Amino acid sequence: MQTKWIYAFEEGNKDLKDLLGGKGANLAEMTRLGLPVPPGFIITTEACKEYLELGRAPLELEVQVTMALRQLEDKAQKILGDATDPLLVSVRSGAKFSMPGMMETILNVGLNDKSVLGLAKISNDERFAWDAYRRLIQMFGKTVLNIEGEIFAHELESIKHKANVSADFELSPNALQDLVDRYKNIIKQEAGIDFPQDPRTQLDMSINSVFDSWNTERAKLYRRRERIPNNLGTAVNVGMMVFGNLGDKSGTGVCFTRDPATGSSGVYGDYLQNAQGEDVVSGIRNTLTLADLETIEPKIFDELVSVMRKLETHYRDLCDIEFTVENSKLWILQTRVGKRTPAAAFRIAVQLVDEHLITLDEALLRVTGSQLVQLMFPQFNKSNSTKPIAVGIAASPGAAVGKAVFSSKVAAEWTERGEKVILFRKETNPDDLGGMIAAVGILTSRGGKTSHAAVVARGMGKTAVCGAEVIEVDYKKNQASCGDHIINEGDLVSIDGSTGEVFLGAIEVESSIVVKYLEQGKTAAIKIASVDDADLIESVDRILRHSDQRRKLHVRTNADTFEDASTARTFGAEGIGLCRTEHMFLGERRQVIERVVLASSDEERNDALSALEPLQREDFRKIFEVMDGFTVTVRLLDPPLHEFLPNFADLKVEVALAQERGKVDQAKLDLLAAVERIHESNPMLGLRGVRLGLMIPGLYALQVRAIASAMADQLEKGKNPKIEIMIPLVGSHMELQLTRSEAEEIIREVETTREVKLTIDIGTMIELPRAALTAGRIASVADFFSFGTNDLTQTTWGFSRDDVEAEFFALYLDKGIFTISPFETIDADGVGELVRTAVARGRAANPDLHLGVCGEHGGDPESIHFFHEVGLNYVSCSPFRVPIARLEAGRAALSAASAEYNSTR
Amino acid sequence: MQTKWIYAFEEGNKDLKDLLGGKGANLAEMTRLGLPVPPGFIITTEACKEYLELGRAPLELEVQVTMALRQLEDKAQKILGDATDPLLVSVRSGAKFSMPGMMETILNVGLNDKSVLGLAKISNDERFAWDAYRRLIQMFGKTVLNIEGEIFAHELESIKHKANVSADFELSPNALQDLVDRYKNIIKQEAGIDFPQDPRTQLDMSINSVFDSWNTERAKLYRRRERIPNNLGTAVNVGMMVFGNLGDKSGTGVCFTRDPATGSSGVYGDYLQNAQGEDVVSGIRNTLTLADLETIEPKIFDELVSVMRKLETHYRDLCDIEFTVENSKLWILQTRVGKRTPAAAFRIAVQLVDEHLITLDEALLRVTGSQLVQLMFPQFNKSNSTKPIAVGIAASPGAAVGKAVFSSKVAAEWTERGEKVILFRKETNPDDLGGMIAAVGILTSRGGKTSHAAVVARGMGKTAVCGAEVIEVDYKKNQASCGDHIINEGDLVSIDGSTGEVFLGAIEVESSIVVKYLEQGKTAAIKIASVDDADLIESVDRILRHSDQRRKLHVRTNADTFEDASTARTFGAEGIGLCRTEHMFLGERRQVIERVVLASSDEERNDALSALEPLQREDFRKIFEVMDGFTVTVRLLDPPLHEFLPNFADLKVEVALAQERGKVDQAKLDLLAAVERIHESNPMLGLRGVRLGLMIPGLYALQVRAIASAMADQLEKGKNPKIEIMIPLVGSHMELQLTRSEAEEIIREVETTREVKLTIDIGTMIELPRAALTAGRIASVADFFSFGTNDLTQTTWGFSRDDVEAEFFALYLDKGIFTISPFETIDADGVGELVRTAVARGRAANPDLHLGVCGEHGGDPESIHFFHEVGLNYVSCSPFRVPIARLEAGRAALSAASAEYNSTR
Repeated sequence: MQTKWIYAFEEGNKDLKDLLGGKGANLAEMTRLGLPVPPGFIITTEACKEYLELGRAPLELEVQVTMALRQLEDKAQKILGDATDPLLVSVRSGAKFSMPGMMETILNVGLNDKSVLGLAKISNDERFAWDAYRRLIQMFGKTVLNIEGEIFAHELESIKHKANVSADFELSPNALQDLVDRYKNIIKQEAGIDFPQDPRTQLDMSINSVFDSWNTERAKLYRRRERIPNNLGTAVNVGMMVFGNLGDKSGTGVCFTRDPATGSSGVYGDYLQNAQGEDVVSGIRNTLTLADLETIEPKIFDELVSVMRKLETHYRDLCDIEFTVENSKLWILQTRVGKRTPAAAFRIAVQLVDEHLITLDEALLRVTGSQLVQLMFPQFNKSNSTKPIAVGIAASPGAAVGKAVFSSKVAAEWTERGEKVILFRKETNPDDLGGMIAAVGILTSRGGKTSHAAVVARGMGKTAVCGAEVIEVDYKKNQASCGDHIINEGDLVSIDGSTGEVFLGAIEVESSIVVKYLEQGKTAAIKIASVDDADLIESVDRILRHSDQRRKLHVRTNADTFEDASTARTFGAEGIGLCRTEHMFLGERRQVIERVVLASSDEERNDALSALEPLQREDFRKIFEVMDGFTVTVRLLDPPLHEFLPNFADLKVEVALAQERGKVDQAKLDLLAAVERIHESNPMLGLRGVRLGLMIPGLYALQVRAIASAMADQLEKGKNPKIEIMIPLVGSHMELQLTRSEAEEIIREVETTREVKLTIDIGTMIELPRAALTAGRIASVADFFSFGTNDLTQTTWGFSRDDVEAEFFALYLDKGIFTISPFETIDADGVGELVRTAVARGRAANPDLHLGVCGEHGGDPESIHFFHEVGLNYVSCSPFRVPIARLEAGRAALSAASAEYNSTR
Repeated sequence: MQTKWIYAFEEGNKDLKDLLGGKGANLAEMTRLGLPVPPGFIITTEACKEYLELGRAPLELEVQVTMALRQLEDKAQKILGDATDPLLVSVRSGAKFSMPGMMETILNVGLNDKSVLGLAKISNDERFAWDAYRRLIQMFGKTVLNIEGEIFAHELESIKHKANVSADFELSPNALQDLVDRYKNIIKQEAGIDFPQDPRTQLDMSINSVFDSWNTERAKLYRRRERIPNNLGTAVNVGMMVFGNLGDKSGTGVCFTRDPATGSSGVYGDYLQNAQGEDVVSGIRNTLTLADLETIEPKIFDELVSVMRKLETHYRDLCDIEFTVENSKLWILQTRVGKRTPAAAFRIAVQLVDEHLITLDEALLRVTGSQLVQLMFPQFNKSNSTKPIAVGIAASPGAAVGKAVFSSKVAAEWTERGEKVILFRKETNPDDLGGMIAAVGILTSRGGKTSHAAVVARGMGKTAVCGAEVIEVDYKKNQASCGDHIINEGDLVSIDGSTGEVFLGAIEVESSIVVKYLEQGKTAAIKIASVDDADLIESVDRILRHSDQRRKLHVRTNADTFEDASTARTFGAEGIGLCRTEHMFLGERRQVIERVVLASSDEERNDALSALEPLQREDFRKIFEVMDGFTVTVRLLDPPLHEFLPNFADLKVEVALAQERGKVDQAKLDLLAAVERIHESNPMLGLRGVRLGLMIPGLYALQVRAIASAMADQLEKGKNPKIEIMIPLVGSHMELQLTRSEAEEIIREVETTREVKLTIDIGTMIELPRAALTAGRIASVADFFSFGTNDLTQTTWGFSRDDVEAEFFALYLDKGIFTISPFETIDADGVGELVRTAVARGRAANPDLHLGVCGEHGGDPESIHFFHEVGLNYVSCSPFRVPIARLEAGRAALSAASAEYNSTR
């Protein structure tokens, strides 16, 4: 049997995206629904794959195109390229996943020296016909024959200059006819062929060029970045051209079945009379609203509203529709599930539930953690409706206000003296790191989402707008200009990293209404909210509570202080998955560590350590108090000692200078000797974690005693503390076994002294590849595992976050080696496999083993799905990520969610 | 059916080591052979396990002991503890694997207040009988009742003092009788019981205490270190006592069936008249040779020779035999396959082949790579037969001569001015690291094989003798004393890290005869060798050549210069598995890197790089020349840039001081800024390897062009270069793919320019966990993998070799967390699993994939077996390790070898 390479629109449906591409499948679906879609056919992605494989079109395709074209001509009652009343067609790419701007489109195929005259006559519009012809030649030359677009643009400018006009549409039919001749000459000169007059040749060459466009370098790079497989191929949509620019009874528009900006219900759209599709979005002319359309063309309006209702009911979601009116006839050109703002996503999802169109489960799947993140960033209060002077790329979200500075040095100096600054740079490089750290926001005039500035800013969680090209940064003058505006050093500016907007002056920043809701509760937050915001709160609350019911993963928080713990509990955290103890050794306690390091005997060291015990115990007690009833997992000291000591190079300089000045201080010399002794060339791979615990007698003992005593304190007060002790950086089960025995002994001691029963689980971080690989043996001496995916990522990939992110992550993202930083979303193929291995081996060896994650991935939406899939018991994340984790954990639990998540990867 | 807990000697055999322990199985074997073994029985390891499980002896054991004891009494024709002619027995431990000194022995069980009199009478030796009795009480008190040995020793001293004698054997029967009373009092006071007079109670308690000795802390620690499983248990050997100290017709001795020191054939041994077993080794009296025995007791001698011949034929190997003559009757007390020196191992193995007792395959299994290592170390020429002043622990092999110094500071200073020094310390700690690096040898008076000094020295490959306890190191006086010898700072000393010997003065060091053989070939080396050495050369040569025929693994070398490559080829290397290119950027070329780093434009950088190209090309050409016909794998630049730049802290001090002095140098400031910019807190996890290649345009291109051009040069000369290019630190297949494409393009360019065909395989190091885990994908773009197990160990365990080895490896070895440094022998459970995974996935994706290892494990005997097992194609190691790898690869290939290797782990 012959392969079916072609589907007429009426043969497909929306579920055939793999075969027909997204656009084609939706066109087919609308045709089946009886909507007024211009007739056409789709050449399948399979045909594309065959073409790319063979290096030519499969043989039967030519015949099948003939059959499909004749059927199309029958429906249109016109013949392709006919001299008197030509059928014209569009040839558009359409892959399974949208790749905007990546692939090619050729319009008006079918025009030639003869049919252009027929079109002019039948449309009664010579200008229109010659303009359509010159557009075909231009698109064909560029796309099919790979001629530099600049050459055509240059010729167009020259004609306009000659005709002394400024806009394209002012050109006369004669001038356009002249332009067509010049364009044909370009084709002849550049491609060495005549522009093909045979309509079928035009069509075949256009189809092939769409196939070819799948494999351009930029398309491949795009796919690498977006993780779209390379072997999908694109479909080709061939459809009858309809024209909105045939006079006042014609026009073109875009509409949405609900407001995609706010989420308010009610139809919404733009319409432009006597215009082609691209004119609506180009903003050259002011568009009309749908209400205007109702006045001008009530019948068309009614028909359109009926189409919208039909599509929304059919797709059960907000639809985004492109339509054209040709001589008072409505044509629907395209539809898709519409993009929307985060707030609209929540509101629309809940509206659809209330309208009984979707279930609450489906509503949960319609919103994402990333959208919730957006809703939680501080926002500018724009009630005074300030207009941005520029809109760049929203590179790293947030709202920042500060004084403009143009160098890293000034940024650091001004920040030092207490100013808030926004760093303006053309682009950034590693030399700017200091300034980026100092600034509250970063603005660049060049570069995109994967530029150095964008990557580094996101890594730091710092607000950034990149590629704001209308802004000229002038380092010499120490100023920036944007049109007529001049921004001098020290001028106040405001940048919105969530929208890319740049404002002059200081705009008031406020916490988002969603954060207010999370902090104060629903009722209190609604009281102070606008109607739209109140509706948003209701929607978020409903979905979040539903998610809590659905999710299998518990959500804990990473919190080192009782303040953080308290915030996290308000946000819904069910315990602490990672309570670091490092900060308890900082501040004025730092000198204790110096004494520990400089100790010349065990006694001296133990004295130093035991001074810390009551302090640590009170630290712990407060945290246990806030989290009473929920589990608190305390990690024993992890970082290398030098983090608590002065910087080696600085101290060396200080001592050298003191010696130079003849003022040598023996204590300083001793300190330098000690710092030099424990100085490590790679501290991340050095004496830290459990190694430190084993090397420094009494260190872990002190901490365990403080924890056990604090727990006893709480028990005595009638509280319900649930405590776990976590040993960091274990690579061998022996390390855990030895440390565990020591800890258990101390817990027994405290039990005896205090006459209480202390049930404290003891487990370990899994943060080294070896720990994951030998998880079976480790599980036999552990009550729980907590995956430290930050460190695990560092060792699995062999790069440390601090060192390399700024240096080469931008390059790697740009080259598509990473699609996202592996510190942001877990690297499922590498690091994730170790997690999977450890889960399987750990549970096999110890079925009671409790499993969680406490790396920053615990708050990352995509990573949460991964952790759900591998079957962890909980994720732990920073307090502000707790609501996101609650949401994504619920989504992950819905099997449809997992499927959806997988299919869009 | 009742479990059989006890085997009479005649019921067992040598293959029952699991059940009867090593000693018991050999006693049983000898009994079966009809040799004169004192009768006895063995309580099985199963009984021990049951005892430890239950916390008491299994019930049937008591009965089975009765049965076995009665059979023993029948054979001995004496009754245990009989008042007139008592049977006495020894109760000895004996596990499957030898654990010397770890477990317990009780002799003379059966003596009590009555039978001691009987023994005195029947032996006609009162002193002997009372001495035997007091020994029983002492051993019983210490071992069975856990009384401090010091208490007995103290009492013995006091009696000797009272009797005014200095040696034990000078004590009169009365004094000994007095001592027995005092010992019984000690038992009463310390243990609260009377010394049991019932012989059977003595026996039962002794048996149980041997069981208990399996689980003492020191036994457990020993097993952890030696990787002996904890659950094996020990057998208990109960045998009739025989006595060599009953007069001149009695005596005791040790003999070997060949000379274990030199490997010369012919029996060899020591005999001592009227003596107990321990007297032979204690060196109190001068022993006689076997020739003397032939004169004194010709019949005994003949019988002994016949026993030796029987045992050697039976065990088909050198046997080590303990025997006792009791009143002109020969008793064989123990035998085992004898330990021997490395030279003896090779010579004896080949002798046995020549005697048709074993095959060449078996001979290959009888020697080890570690023995060959020992034979390759430089040696002292001891023809002048200098005597050592002390013998410590042979901690790190080699022969070192230098001036004694007593502090790290002096060691560093003297070395700086060109002296060779030996660092004397009581023990070392991390503060001594500088001195240890400076010294040619290290000597400590404390600490064992796992002390800081020993571990660090072995890691550095530096000669060390540790724990030379007779040497007193006095830091204050800046000298050491050893008996009458005083060693002052600056005195010449010689230390032998292979024997632990310490000599005064300088002893001539020479390369070993085996190295001479490897360097000059067999014929030339034999010409200059002694007879024994000539035999050794023949033996090594024969075994090594046989190994070459058997081995499946190819052996390559790690060599960066043509000198190293040349040495390695002489030693049998079949190519270069790792040719590093780092050194090609050092020396005077270092400034090029400074120019590369400081370059402000691509052009400047390319200029700097291209200056290097002709130099690199000549470097490569020379290496290709030496290895013509064999594969050379060149690794592109790996280390981070800062390794080629000045030290950051030092430079900072230099600039600070210059500023202080008002002499600021702009070039220095620029350099400091650059060094600071590329300074990384964890360079091991930073910008290096392929990341550097991708970040610095032109760097890898330069190297690839130099390699391809050098290959073309060789081809033009009619040579046969076989070249591979290796990309370091790949974590994602994309990195390799991008780098590979770039390299291939350059190779094509050179092919075109030079008009040659260049076949260059391109592959990668597998040195990151992620590379191993995603090896399938990487293999699809790689021609070969080379495991970089040093780096893989670092990332899998999360510690870097430089930083932590000195710091905590000693502790980890001591606690048994490591049994050996994972940088020395591959960690099969963690790192090894990644290797296994990568091999499987790599080969599945690309069946033509070539696999090797170029980490230092490639030259480690145990690791080579691992690499053979996982199916690599080759190992690559340093030139001096090539012969060891050749030997071990052959051993690994013999399946018996693998089995043996596994069973002794």
